[in-house]
Parts: sequence; structure tokens; C-alpha cells
Amino acid sequence: MISKNQFKYIRLLEQKKYRRREGLFVAEGTKTVDDLMQRTQPRMVFATEEYLQVRPHLFKTEGEIVKVTDDELRRLSFQQHPQQVLALFPIPDVKASKTPSGLSLALDGVQDPGNLGTIIRIADWFGIDTIYCSEETVDAWNPKVVQATMGSIARVNIIYTDLPVFLDSLPHDFPVYGTFLDGENIYTQPLSREGLIIMGNEGNGISDDVRRRVSHRLLIPDFHQGGTADSLNVAIATAITCSEFRRRL
Amino acid sequence: MISKNQFKYIRLLEQKKYRRREGLFVAEGTKTVDDLMQRTQPRMVFATEEYLQVRPHLFKTEGEIVKVTDDELRRLSFQQHPQQVLALFPIPDVKASKTPSGLSLALDGVQDPGNLGTIIRIADWFGIDTIYCSEETVDAWNPKVVQATMGSIARVNIIYTDLPVFLDSLPHDFPVYGTFLDGENIYTQPLSREGLIIMGNEGNGISDDVRRRVSHRLLIPDFHQGGTADSLNVAIATAITCSEFRRRL
Repeated sequence: MISKNQFKYIRLLEQKKYRRREGLFVAEGTKTVDDLMQRTQPRMVFATEEYLQVRPHLFKTEGEIVKVTDDELRRLSFQQHPQQVLALFPIPDVKASKTPSGLSLALDGVQDPGNLGTIIRIADWFGIDTIYCSEETVDAWNPKVVQATMGSIARVNIIYTDLPVFLDSLPHDFPVYGTFLDGENIYTQPLSREGLIIMGNEGNGISDDVRRRVSHRLLIPDFHQGGTADSLNVAIATAITCSEFRRRL
Repeated sequence: MISKNQFKYIRLLEQKKYRRREGLFVAEGTKTVDDLMQRTQPRMVFATEEYLQVRPHLFKTEGEIVKVTDDELRRLSFQQHPQQVLALFPIPDVKASKTPSGLSLALDGVQDPGNLGTIIRIADWFGIDTIYCSEETVDAWNPKVVQATMGSIARVNIIYTDLPVFLDSLPHDFPVYGTFLDGENIYTQPLSREGLIIMGNEGNGISDDVRRRVSHRLLIPDFHQGGTADSLNVAIATAITCSEFRRRL
């Protein structure tokens, strides 16, 4: 049974300011919740009997376990088709390291929750363990983002930071890549094993303040014959860019 | 002013069976409608004064032009934030050619409208002019798909067909590619300039009937260290695959 207060509390976590105040975020669905539990203890779990039955170990967690009916879960959920479980997890407190090791992503104002979620999933696939987000980037612990990561949010470190300040703090020879319409063909450019790949906002691309700090300007060439100029979705551009860096390992 | 009948008619076009019966689909927003008008004449256009003012040539089209208020457009629209115009276009009647030239895509049961829209946009970017869709694939003239293509639906031929039958009709040495968990590393395999790239359903991948007809089994390798098996969204996998084929041109 869910109490009225629990219900209210979870609805408040849809808002960033309450997530920050409480240090908690909402994760839903068997895959996402199971993946997160491999890394961190949930604070509260609202689950159907179907979910709890096959996870007896769950009762050893320190968090509170509340058994709910399908109907209660539906009212609690932020999704159209809730799947067995909704849980509250602590927002990880990861600090930016002075020099990122290997390859990392940096997002300069990505706005769409689906895009951010997909980018986190891409990072996970390509073994990129850290994503630096500008303060203007949509919050990664927004329920829609968490959902779109399909569990990958459990495996990728997300750090919100003042991006220009962070870029200035890097060693001056640390490679910083970005994609631009007037960059060099990504398919033929040398790409390093370590560095930062910056992806910009959906409408405006990379901001001026960040652009000035990019050391390697790349272009993803299009192959369509003549006609109207086109664009790639930022998550698609991220996938193509990460694929190019990784295939050369 | 929109009449009650026009309103009803447009709502019906949300359903595939009415789209097929009428041979029409709904396109919305300045970019998508403008892109489509470069290729085909609209049957009906519902547009705000703001839209019509800067497009005097529009009044030369054979279709009916209806000036609407922002409020009328909002009621008419399938989108959350309608943008100046909604128009009805004829569904193009494109037949499958015996032997596709160059590179084409084939979709075996892609279900999500957003994924199909994004795949059409990717095809446009990579100069792939035809997509063959199995009958189980979500309808490309669904308003949500049209929206997600961001105008690319105007430039890519979409053909619904019985996929196994179509594959059997191809010359026996025509290269048919598919991605599988046990395929060969796409980054190091030779890839031809012409061929068909098959992408499967979101949950189940490529169906058995289609799988048997694949001549080249590819794998997109993941790079994440140990742990849980992961997956790529079908649109992301399409982007990486098309990028690999095209970069070698």
C-alpha cells in the first residue's frame, strides 16, 4: 500500500529542484532498476508481487520495500506502460577529475530528455565512462532521461559543470573535439585515444564560449545528392562520432 | 475557417486504414511542408497568415488553401506545439524495382514511429534513396513518423512489401547485409557499394524468414568493459552501419 505522503513525495521528484534537495531520483522498469541495483542501494522500492517474487535478495537492502498492485504502480508511474517496479536511488556525487582519462563526452546544452538518454546509452556501448554536461543541459535524473537510458545510467558517470571553466582547467594540449559544418572530414582525420568529444545543442550547436576551446574541428560529411541542406539528430551524430573514434582502437 | 467536416476528415487520417483509402497523409510544420512541396503538390493546406504571407506562390497550387488561426491549428494538429501549417499530401506510389541500385535499407518490423522517422532522416543524410519496409513495420505516413523525419520523408522512397518474397526476387549474388550478435566485425569487413542493409525489430531483431536470406552477417562490436550485456537502439545501429558503408566510398 502506498501512503498519500509517499505518492506526493514521488510526484515532487519529477522536478529538478526537489531531486537536488532530496538527492534522489526515480528509476522505473525491471531492466533499469536491476542495473542500478548492481551499483547502488535503492532508498525505496515500490514493486509488484511479480517483481519481488523472483528477487528475494531485495529484502536485504537497507531501503524500504513497498509491495504495490498494478493499479497503484500505474498511478505512481511517470510512464505510459509501467513495468513492475519504481524505485528511488541516490543521485551519485561524482566530481570532475583534473584530467579525464581515455575518451569522454561533453554536452553543451542538449535539451531533449530522449536525446540525452540515448547519448548516455551510446556512451555505455562505446565504453565511454564519463559525460560532462553544461549547466544548461537537461537534467540526467529527469525520469524521462533515466527511462531512455535503458539502464545505462547505472554505468556512466554524469557530471554537471561550467563547461568553459572545465575546459580551461584541462592541460593545454588535451585534445578537445567538436563537430562543425566547416570542420575536417571525420572519416579521414587522425583521432586520438584520449580526449573530449563535445556535442552541442539541438538547434544551435556548440556555443561560442565552448567553440573557442575546441582544438580539433570535425565534420560528419553528408552523402545525399544536391538539394536541401540537412541535419543529423544530436544523438545520431554522437553515435557516428563515437563509432569513428572506437573503430580505430 | 475550418469546417466541421474538414476537422473530422483530418482526424480520421491518424488511422492507417483511412490514409490508405484516401491515399493521403498529414504533414505539419514549416520545414516538413516546405520540403514536401518541392516534390509534390499538396491537396489541402491549413495555414496561418504568418505562413501564407511569405509564400505567395502557394496560391498557385491546385490544392485547397484554408487560412486558420493559431487556435484552430492547435485543435487540428497532432503535435504538442503546432507550427504555422498542416497540409495533406498524396501518399507516393513507388514500386519496388527488380534490382535496387546502389545501397538501400530494408526494415524488418520496426515498430516505434520515432525510430522509423529517425531512420528515414539517416537514409536521407547518407544518400540512401529507398527504404523497403516489411508489412509489419509501422506505417511511414503515420503523423508521428512524418514529424520525426524533419522533412526527409520528401526525399526518400518508402516501399512496403513482403520482405522474404522481395529478397527471393533479387539476383542470387546481390549482397544482403544484416547485423547480428554473432556476425563479423563491421569495422574490418569488406562492404560493397551496392546492396541491401536489413535492420530488425526493436525487441526481436531480424525475423527467421528474413535471416535465412542474409548473405553477409555483420556485428557492431561494443567497447564497454565487462558486465551486463547491452543493446543499441535500432536507429543508432542504422546510423553506425550506414556510416561504415559510406565512409569507404
